[in-house]
Amino acid sequence: MFFDILTLFPEMFEGPFSESIINRAREKDLIEVKTINIRDYAEDKHNRTDDTPYGGGAGMVMKAGPIYRAWEQVKSQRSVESKTILMSPQGEQLTQNIVNDLAKEPGLIIICGRYEGVDERVRKTIVDREISIGDYVLTGGEIPAMVLVDAAARLLTGVLGDEESSKKDSFYNGLLEHPHYTRPREFKGLKVPDVLLSGNHQLIERWRKKESLRRTLMRREDLLKDKELTEEDKKLLKEIKAELKGEVDESN
Amino acid sequence: MFFDILTLFPEMFEGPFSESIINRAREKDLIEVKTINIRDYAEDKHNRTDDTPYGGGAGMVMKAGPIYRAWEQVKSQRSVESKTILMSPQGEQLTQNIVNDLAKEPGLIIICGRYEGVDERVRKTIVDREISIGDYVLTGGEIPAMVLVDAAARLLTGVLGDEESSKKDSFYNGLLEHPHYTRPREFKGLKVPDVLLSGNHQLIERWRKKESLRRTLMRREDLLKDKELTEEDKKLLKEIKAELKGEVDESN
Repeated sequence: MFFDILTLFPEMFEGPFSESIINRAREKDLIEVKTINIRDYAEDKHNRTDDTPYGGGAGMVMKAGPIYRAWEQVKSQRSVESKTILMSPQGEQLTQNIVNDLAKEPGLIIICGRYEGVDERVRKTIVDREISIGDYVLTGGEIPAMVLVDAAARLLTGVLGDEESSKKDSFYNGLLEHPHYTRPREFKGLKVPDVLLSGNHQLIERWRKKESLRRTLMRREDLLKDKELTEEDKKLLKEIKAELKGEVDESN
Repeated sequence: MFFDILTLFPEMFEGPFSESIINRAREKDLIEVKTINIRDYAEDKHNRTDDTPYGGGAGMVMKAGPIYRAWEQVKSQRSVESKTILMSPQGEQLTQNIVNDLAKEPGLIIICGRYEGVDERVRKTIVDREISIGDYVLTGGEIPAMVLVDAAARLLTGVLGDEESSKKDSFYNGLLEHPHYTRPREFKGLKVPDVLLSGNHQLIERWRKKESLRRTLMRREDLLKDKELTEEDKKLLKEIKAELKGEVDESN
């Protein structure tokens, strides 16, 4: 899968994709990340890529022309069709379902906005999908683009070491993940729950499912509304609610 | 404001904070970003920072010891109290309100999780707040930490060139931002709305407010529920709904 990233700050992408999993994926040719400097497509001799907003007001707006020409250029260099994504706080909110969808594409062109935003006509002429990574404002679309690349890349076959890992993550099945413990058995007076040392896989699975439901109930009840609960889920949730009423924390 | 970032991949942070606004803020000593390699605090001769999960299953869990010792070390080097944030998909969802709160702190210690997650006892002993940047899974907490640093840093006085800019952003007043236009007047057959060229500031403000409401209504109706609407807002929304019924797009 390829990612063609249109940005005014290509150097920002050097660290994040040169380490760990994403770097390994690049070395194995599972993904290709290319940054394109929008400034190289400026039209005037001053290399201007932004200008004051029509109607007045603070801040600068990214001009449509340079972005459009950079986009035309990368588009012409790929033999397959690809979607164009604008990272912007005005977009639809990124969810794991959207990531799952986008990871099926052969590649993505990602436009990183800056300053007050991009000229509206960029959106109208070349953008297929406008995506926000959350309800907060950043200095630009570069870090959001890293989020999107990282989230999509890790779903591709061969990127994660262990195929299992991405299937049990938070949000993959609509629940938050259960707590994890590793050695030592006791740390700062806190012990690993006995069940995890029992060797009884059925009990361990049941504990994990229950703690996953407990955590989701306590922290993100909104996620439970969207989920189809099995009979076992419902039974476990009933147990958890009874425990909470008695104010007993069974998670330790 | 300082950010002490505990990570297994400090090199990831080199690009993102060495450019543009955040770099300028560092040069002006408005923020300090320090990365601490958790591996330097490993306890055994193999520098192990992860281990298999108790109870079995795929993936590795980050050990509590190295994170704890790295945390103790950075904590002892700062003379002011600071909150410790764990970036994790199981945390509360980051919003602009949380960013506004955190930007008031003198500094933050940010722990970046990796693999299947961190040993639960890290959360129980040193974490004040567990934060998720959104409902999707990434390869680690590093990019989310960049999100948090970027979002908080831009709110500090002197970081953005123009004080106005951060006050009119999306989410600052609970609405999505209106469209922006800059030169040229016509691009690919698409013209700048006449009102923006009128020079009538009252009409321009009204148009911007209306388009901001329109965009929020059409893309993120959920945001309107949480917002206290003024009489003018309500009137504009009524107009927008009437236009939508007539399927007339007045935004162009």
